[in-house]
Amino acid sequence: MTAVWHSKNSGHNMHSIRNTRFLRALNNQPNDRTPIWIMRQAGRYLPEYREVRAKAGDFMTLASTPELACEVTLQPIKRFRLDAAIIFSDILTVPDAMGLGLYFAEGEGPKFKNPTRTPKDIDALHTPDPETDLRYVMDAIRLTRSELNDSVPLIGFCGSPWTVATYMIEGSGSKEYVHTKKLMYGDDAALHNLLNKVAEASINYLRAQAEAGAQALMVFDTWGGILTPMAYHNFSLRYMNEIVHALQQSHPAIPVTLFTKNGGMWLPDIAHTGCAGVGVDWTIDLRDARALTQDKVTLQGNLDPGVLYGSKAKIKEEVLRVLESYGEGDRHIFNLGHGIHQHIDPDNVEFMIETVHELSPSFHTNSPNDE
Amino acid sequence: MTAVWHSKNSGHNMHSIRNTRFLRALNNQPNDRTPIWIMRQAGRYLPEYREVRAKAGDFMTLASTPELACEVTLQPIKRFRLDAAIIFSDILTVPDAMGLGLYFAEGEGPKFKNPTRTPKDIDALHTPDPETDLRYVMDAIRLTRSELNDSVPLIGFCGSPWTVATYMIEGSGSKEYVHTKKLMYGDDAALHNLLNKVAEASINYLRAQAEAGAQALMVFDTWGGILTPMAYHNFSLRYMNEIVHALQQSHPAIPVTLFTKNGGMWLPDIAHTGCAGVGVDWTIDLRDARALTQDKVTLQGNLDPGVLYGSKAKIKEEVLRVLESYGEGDRHIFNLGHGIHQHIDPDNVEFMIETVHELSPSFHTNSPNDE
Repeated sequence: MTAVWHSKNSGHNMHSIRNTRFLRALNNQPNDRTPIWIMRQAGRYLPEYREVRAKAGDFMTLASTPELACEVTLQPIKRFRLDAAIIFSDILTVPDAMGLGLYFAEGEGPKFKNPTRTPKDIDALHTPDPETDLRYVMDAIRLTRSELNDSVPLIGFCGSPWTVATYMIEGSGSKEYVHTKKLMYGDDAALHNLLNKVAEASINYLRAQAEAGAQALMVFDTWGGILTPMAYHNFSLRYMNEIVHALQQSHPAIPVTLFTKNGGMWLPDIAHTGCAGVGVDWTIDLRDARALTQDKVTLQGNLDPGVLYGSKAKIKEEVLRVLESYGEGDRHIFNLGHGIHQHIDPDNVEFMIETVHELSPSFHTNSPNDE
Repeated sequence: MTAVWHSKNSGHNMHSIRNTRFLRALNNQPNDRTPIWIMRQAGRYLPEYREVRAKAGDFMTLASTPELACEVTLQPIKRFRLDAAIIFSDILTVPDAMGLGLYFAEGEGPKFKNPTRTPKDIDALHTPDPETDLRYVMDAIRLTRSELNDSVPLIGFCGSPWTVATYMIEGSGSKEYVHTKKLMYGDDAALHNLLNKVAEASINYLRAQAEAGAQALMVFDTWGGILTPMAYHNFSLRYMNEIVHALQQSHPAIPVTLFTKNGGMWLPDIAHTGCAGVGVDWTIDLRDARALTQDKVTLQGNLDPGVLYGSKAKIKEEVLRVLESYGEGDRHIFNLGHGIHQHIDPDNVEFMIETVHELSPSFHTNSPNDE
């Protein structure tokens, strides 16, 4: 990871974008209001998404066809006044490219044909070349950048090595992580070997996404919160820290955001990696998250996605609560605390977004004069 | 809840028990070593449990036949040097007695035939009479007390109103708690109505368990950790607080322990209820949990159940880490951070227990001279 990376995209990436609010927040620059995007914003709650999804037939065809991935990435941008797009993909594309055979059983979530459980399985893994093995993601990013035409920035992402490894080991989602814990407490050297390989693949993958045109990057650590504090540091944060440092070296202008679900107690350590942004779920008040991270990072979050089942009055009340909890300042990106649910009414999503547009300016002082 | 409760079991309940360590820890009295019991200690990891379970046919037959419930409650006590027994039952017996029709679909977890989703459903719920509607639990407690013959204390328990309500509303376990969140953000008065009814039923149920012979009580709040801090206070902690206060009034000598999974950040508030003990999962170090609760409560936990997949050397290392993390003092009850997994080798459980016996005396100064 120490080789110098010759980047085509390491300069400042903000000059050409018309809506700079999202990147301003990550770069600690004055803003006129709180930027907003939504985790899983291109998703099943949108009828136009369900239409394309049905046309594609299955999730992986949708994700691996650049024209379709681009189309669904743009859907929420066309419908709502959002401040960032995020490329439509999945955190498990990397292990799929490593040969595990990702598939989605209807109603059962992601599965792997070839789980990785033994030291021999792990030794046999190859590091994918993003521009060949994951070319469909890079093509989707290039196409989406072209279609966005610099209206809003495009976010690229990957899963955290720990989170990805749990799926690789279990072969699917899990409740008790039996095989993962067996490896962790039975052969931690093998687990570190796996995590090193996934971290290397993730760094290559994020660098390639930046080269393809991603203007910000995010690492989703969905399952870091199931660990002891020590195991979180050893098996999850350590590898996210490597990713942050590798990207800072190769692409210093591309801000990286880390998000550990249920990681409220570890926010100071997450911020200590030097990442630009930290995602926060709804189990901690932003007031406390901000105190714990001492304004060193930009906080992204953290409305309970369940609020969107409520009335408009309730949504407004809860949006205001999130804005007030963060308080005055420019290092806040409004988001849900986790992905939007499938059965949410898009009208409520629009109302939430418009409410952030309406109520957030009073928490800011500057006007970037964006569109 | 303000009526005076005439209790047959409100005096000091420790004089007759031969192994007092568990109650000593809860009563903040000197101990010679750290007491230990295991969440779900009567469970599928024991071959003798699987035998009785097979004989019973299904889980509910096992739980609702006092002789069988007593038999499996005693199994871990006979096999291991544990310091407390916990009555074999389930947190969903209360809503079952409220008419929801609990059943266990093989491999799918608990389900209800009649979920409670509308204000009308909630209005129609009746408060069960524990000595008639849940008599099988009381009979199991009486029988178990008799069989234990005062060797170790017997713990009774219930689910937290919030956790029980999520199952009542969803009709099963859940990932996104769609129906519960719809009620929370759409009609919180109806949700409070439900929680009040479950809290009242839980208080009656725990009081009846104390009368039947339970010498300590525990409230399992498995799903409090999915809430925002404010929602946790309003919808979960508030009702556990009511339970603690009601039991303190009627049964001041029976210590109550509260356990919110993923509640590490809320430990100060949990301790503030005045409960005797607080369960702690493995996502926080006991050192920090102790600092947050300022020695006001006894802490119970918090080994990662996954450690039991490891080698004996690893188990010893991790047991010592938990003991050292708590440090010197008598207000620690050793336990796992959540229930023991199904595929754990009982030999490893025995080794963990013996390791606590061996290593914990150096963290204590007094010798109660128990057996």
